[in-house]
Order: sequence, then C-alpha cells, then structure tokens
Amino acid sequence: MKADLLITGISQLATATGAGPKRGAEMRAVTVIEHAAIAVASGEVAWVGKASDWTGDAAETVDAGDRAVVPGLVDPHTHAVWAGDRLADFEARATGANYEAILASGGGIRSTIRDTAAASAEELAQLAVPRLEALMRSGATTVEVKSGYGFTVAAELKMLQAVWLAAGMVEARIVPTLLIHIPPVNAVERTEYVARVCEELIPEAARRGLATAMDVFVEREAWSAAEAAQMLDAAQRSGLAVKLHADQFHAIGGVELGVRKGALSVDHLEASGPEQIVAIAASRTIATILPGVSLHLGTPPAPGRKLIDAGAAVAVGTDLNPGSSPLFSAAEALALAVRLNGLAPQEALVAGTVNAACALGLANVGRLEPGCAADFAVLEGGDWRELVYTLGANVAREVWIAGRKVRG
Amino acid sequence: MKADLLITGISQLATATGAGPKRGAEMRAVTVIEHAAIAVASGEVAWVGKASDWTGDAAETVDAGDRAVVPGLVDPHTHAVWAGDRLADFEARATGANYEAILASGGGIRSTIRDTAAASAEELAQLAVPRLEALMRSGATTVEVKSGYGFTVAAELKMLQAVWLAAGMVEARIVPTLLIHIPPVNAVERTEYVARVCEELIPEAARRGLATAMDVFVEREAWSAAEAAQMLDAAQRSGLAVKLHADQFHAIGGVELGVRKGALSVDHLEASGPEQIVAIAASRTIATILPGVSLHLGTPPAPGRKLIDAGAAVAVGTDLNPGSSPLFSAAEALALAVRLNGLAPQEALVAGTVNAACALGLANVGRLEPGCAADFAVLEGGDWRELVYTLGANVAREVWIAGRKVRG
Repeated sequence: MKADLLITGISQLATATGAGPKRGAEMRAVTVIEHAAIAVASGEVAWVGKASDWTGDAAETVDAGDRAVVPGLVDPHTHAVWAGDRLADFEARATGANYEAILASGGGIRSTIRDTAAASAEELAQLAVPRLEALMRSGATTVEVKSGYGFTVAAELKMLQAVWLAAGMVEARIVPTLLIHIPPVNAVERTEYVARVCEELIPEAARRGLATAMDVFVEREAWSAAEAAQMLDAAQRSGLAVKLHADQFHAIGGVELGVRKGALSVDHLEASGPEQIVAIAASRTIATILPGVSLHLGTPPAPGRKLIDAGAAVAVGTDLNPGSSPLFSAAEALALAVRLNGLAPQEALVAGTVNAACALGLANVGRLEPGCAADFAVLEGGDWRELVYTLGANVAREVWIAGRKVRG
Repeated sequence: MKADLLITGISQLATATGAGPKRGAEMRAVTVIEHAAIAVASGEVAWVGKASDWTGDAAETVDAGDRAVVPGLVDPHTHAVWAGDRLADFEARATGANYEAILASGGGIRSTIRDTAAASAEELAQLAVPRLEALMRSGATTVEVKSGYGFTVAAELKMLQAVWLAAGMVEARIVPTLLIHIPPVNAVERTEYVARVCEELIPEAARRGLATAMDVFVEREAWSAAEAAQMLDAAQRSGLAVKLHADQFHAIGGVELGVRKGALSVDHLEASGPEQIVAIAASRTIATILPGVSLHLGTPPAPGRKLIDAGAAVAVGTDLNPGSSPLFSAAEALALAVRLNGLAPQEALVAGTVNAACALGLANVGRLEPGCAADFAVLEGGDWRELVYTLGANVAREVWIAGRKVRG
C-alpha cells in the first residue's frame, strides 16, 4: 500500500468502528489499538493498525511521541455566531436576579438578537473565528454552527452567510444549520413569520445551499410543536434534513415531533421523561445532550445514562452560546457528560465522535477507519482517557484535519 | 516617580484593595479602573491608576492592547505532586463501581501513595512541573502544594523536597505545606505515626524550612480532631502555621479545631452546617472551598454563599489531585465557584486572589496596589468578568510575575 503519510509512535489509538450511530451498549465498544499507526492518503485514512503490522510505503513518517490519538471531535450543536456579550446577564444571575428580571431590563436572548442584527456578516464571522479556534484547540475538527439570532428572513440569511464566511477562515469542517429560535412577541407577526420562514427563508436557504439542516426551538416560551411541524415540513419539501431543540425546560412534544419526522437529532432533553426516552430509543434519531447548559444555568442534566440504558444513540455537544453555555471546549463537554450525565468514558468518546457526526448526517468523520477523513487529535499523554478525565486544561496537543496538522 | 516598566492599554484593571482578607459583603468590593496603567519597580507595583493620571518616568512601556488585567491568581490548595495516575479509578467510578470496591481492587488514594513512594524526589518534581504550568497558563502566579502521599517520615520529607525542586523549575511562587493525609490501617502504627510526626517530621521540616504550614485531613476515614490537635500543637511549637482539611464528608470537629487553633484556613467544608458556618464567620480563619471536587465526585458543593452571607472570608482553590479533583485551571475553579457555590463574579475574584493569599499567610500578593508583587494576568478580552464567565478555555493571554512576562 502507498500512503502520503504514516503517523507512528501512537501509544493508544481509540476509536469507534463501523459506520452508523452506536446505540445503547454499543456505545461502550471503543476499539483501542496499542502501539498503533495511521496511514493517510489523499486526506483520508488509508490504513490503521499496530505499527508493527504496517508493510506499505509512506512518503513521509511522523512520530507522535508515544502519545494517544483519538478521532477529531465533532461538536454537533453550537450557536458560535453572535455579537455583543451577556456578561451583565451573567453577573445579574450570579447575584440573584431571575430570568424575567434580566429580560425586563433589556438583557437575555433579545439583547443578543439586537446586537447581532446591528453587525454585518463579515463582523459576525470575525467574532466567530476565535470561538471556533478555541473549539479546535480542544480537539474539534467538525463543528455545527446554527443561525437563530434573527427575527427576520434577512437576519437569518445574514447569519448563515456569516457561518460560511467563518468556515472560510478556519480549518475545521463547519456544518451550517438554519435555526428558527425565538418567535416575535406579537401573535399576528408570529403567524406571519412562520409563513415567511416556510415560503421564503427555507426555500432560499436550500436553493443557495446555505444550510444542510433546519432546527426549531420547541418550548413554551418559543415555538409549539404544531408550529415547528409546519416549518419542518417546509424544510423537508426543500430537501433539508431536520432537527429540534426539544424538552429543554418542558416536554411539550418536541421529541415526539422529531421522532415522527425522522429528525437527525433531538437536542437538549433535560426535561425528557420515560415516554420521551422510550420514543427516542425506538427511533433512528440521535439524542444530543448539552451538559454545559446544566453547569452554567444549574438546571437538571439531561438523562444521558437512562437514554443509553434504554438503547438510544447519544451525542454530546457544547451548545456554545453566550447566554446559557459559554463552554469553549468540545473535550470539556465530554468530561462534563461523564460527571453530570452519567456517561462512561468510552460512551463519552463515542458521543463526541461518531454519534455526533451521525447527528449531522456525516458518515465519514468521527472514526479512524479506512475511507474516513484523516481528522484526529494527538493528546498530551499516553492514555486516551485523559481526554475526558481532565478538567480545565487542554489535552489535545496536536489537531489534524484531512491528514494535515492544523494546531500544535 | 521612576519605574522600570509601565503597562498601559489596560481596558479594565480589577482588583481588591487594602491588606487582609475580605469578609462577607466586603467580598463584592472589587475596584475596577477603566483605561488603567500599572507602574512596576523592582518587581513590585509602584503605582496603579488611570493611564491619563500617570506623570512619572518609565524605562519601558508595554501596551496591553485594550485588554483587562487582574491580579495573578492564587491557588491556595493543591496536591500537585504525585506519581502514577487514577484513570482506572475514574473509569471504574464512571461505570458504577463504588469507592469501597475501588479501594478493595487496589485503587484509590493508596495506589497514589504506592506510586509516589516508588518515585524519587527528582521524578516527582518532573511530574509536577506540567501541572504547575497548566495552573500558570490559567493565570495562577502563586500555588500552594502539599505533601501527604507518604506513610512515613521519610516519604513526607521526600515529597516536600520534590515541592522545592519543582518550585525551582517554574516561575510561579510555590508555597509548600506539610500534609498528614491518611493514617496507617493498624491502630498501633497509627499512634506511633502521630508520635513520629510530632517528634521527628514536624521539627525536621520546620528546622530545614521545608514547609511554611502544616495541614491535617480530619475525617472519619482519616484523622480524628483529637489526633489532629496533637499534630497542630507540635506544628505550632515548631513555628509552623496550621490549616486543616475539614468537613469534607462529615463535620467531626475539624472546623471547630481549626478555629480554636487560629488556623490560616479550613478547607473543603462540603459537610459544614449552620454551627460550623457561624464558627468560621466569627473567627479569623479563611474558609477555602474546592468546587472541582464537587464537579468531579458529584458530591454536594460547599456552602459558599451561606459562608459569605454569614460574614466569612472565602477563598477558592483547585484542590488539584488525581483522585478527587483533576482540575488544572485556577480560573476554572473560580468559574465553578460561581456556578456551584453561588459566588458572585466579584466574590470569586476576591476568593481567588487576596483571600487565597491570606489563606497562605501572604500579605503582598493577590492585589494590584503599591508595595504588592507585580503579579498579574492580561486577559484575552476587555472585560475582567470573562475570567469567571468562560468555561473550558483559557482567557489568560499573558501571565506576569514580579513584573516579568512568564507566559504569553
């Protein structure tokens, strides 16, 4: 076999194997190869195995220095494009103000929408780049980024444009999602907005290829399941995949709608009960949990353990956003999932790689197997478990995308 | 005024002011100077104020780039010297094993004691350096490091020697503490060990200047308050300051003993109730809380909010150690104290600077005022609150110790 590059000196290579999401007990099946090597050709993994078993020809060899290697992390849920900050909200909440008081004083998500409306797509992209770079330093090689801080068709299109501009400024693979987040306050405007989303925004975003999926926030203070169903129908007519923010504070039908529509994922799930857990486990939809929100807001963690025990395929994301999850590390999201959601280290790795990739509809990232993208992280130490054990520090020493070192 | 160095371009300089610990409502009184400058002479702060008010002469000027500056963080509680790892324990616990099962299988703290016993002081120091460097990258300029993974006089002296060796390899100010951690299992050995600690170890450590304070772990599975009292008495006779691990799992008198002995600090306090809170608040002893343990073990957080409301002076530390707090960031410890212990951002800054310094008996670090050490961190952004807001990423762009840039 001929390869462009051979990475040797890998103390442990830890990866899920086989295409498709891992569910239930499959999530513990991480393959660990000791004294491993990876051969890369044309940006893809050409071969993986014990270094002593390699018999091919590599144009170049790189020694990882007896360190562990894991697949590049996939962050399947971020709101990395925003303007302004929410530091005043943070301080107010930490000193006892409640959510309503913060909204009433002009803070909260509506302040982010105002600040984002005032920025150009170029400015928004520039603001997003250091956030995406922080995620990359933590080992992420694929990052989903949502729109959703707009109240108008034009504002959402500008946000998607910003995602694309930012994607051009960083090496990571960026997956853009059209999110319909917060409804207008006025009931007439609300109905009109749904119509414009269905008739103008979705077809336009799909026609221009600006988003690969559509997401709606189903919640008491946001959209009902019936409104979301209208928008998901329109998305599917336009050929977009669908996903939902579901059961964050109240289980009002988001999970059931997502499962019925064949959503790629239902995300959040903090308020999901036994019925929702069973519904997800019986479906092909990924359960994406977001522990940064639980840590930052002090709200109950999603039932990650119960979802896996019921047979669901769980993914983990940062939910990076200024209001409810200022978590700038995909690895720390996995570390938190172990502590807050009851995942085993192996389950966390699977949740942050292959399952997260499936939540984005990506078949060939998140695993280190022949034919998959050569996206991986070389860790500081020799044991891959340090990725999810370590709190507060970065253990990704090098980050490689498509067989090229982009960090470290 | 003549200065060696003037730092300008400081968007916000945030610091506690005035010597001594801040208690109760004083903990919210952070001074924030906008458009600030710091003049440094002989490694100390010579002047601080609005840049426009500076009228002196500086040999050199450095522009911080319109970024926020905070005092170098002080981490008042770490066990940064150890050998081996606890990844197997971590995995076992995350997959459902209980503490007793882990101990029975040869894991737990006794495995760290074994591995540490097998390493030389030089090896232990080399292992500690990257951990201390991670804390420094997070903004820490002063770090306490305890012994305590020994079962013999010689093993504890070796650990203190390792702390000193490590101190010589990093720029941070290192404060060594002699910790008597876990008792021998056998009752006779236990009594004998207390005698040897009092008669040999403490006098020897004090005579050689190897430690500035002595710490004992008071807990059901460790030492009783009566045993600790014997050891603290011996420490005080030898001129060492004293502190205690108190009320981590059970309130069995550690806090009361610490307060009675005039301890610099009582640390942990997760199990402290109203009586202990009142006792600390009425004393000069600092209450050091350690939120990394609560996150990692899932145990109840210490009552930080109640302690401050009762009038106590609270400090925050990482408790960096392999078994119960693999938290490698002093800034993230503060960020966690806001989320888990109910501290306001200002209180967290005070807890991680001046109060933490007082918990180590240090009068002139942890504040940016004339006569204090010129130890500070330049943050990535312009608002100092990002230090405690940000999760999972490092916001300390530069770290300066004694007026010299050591990171960034």
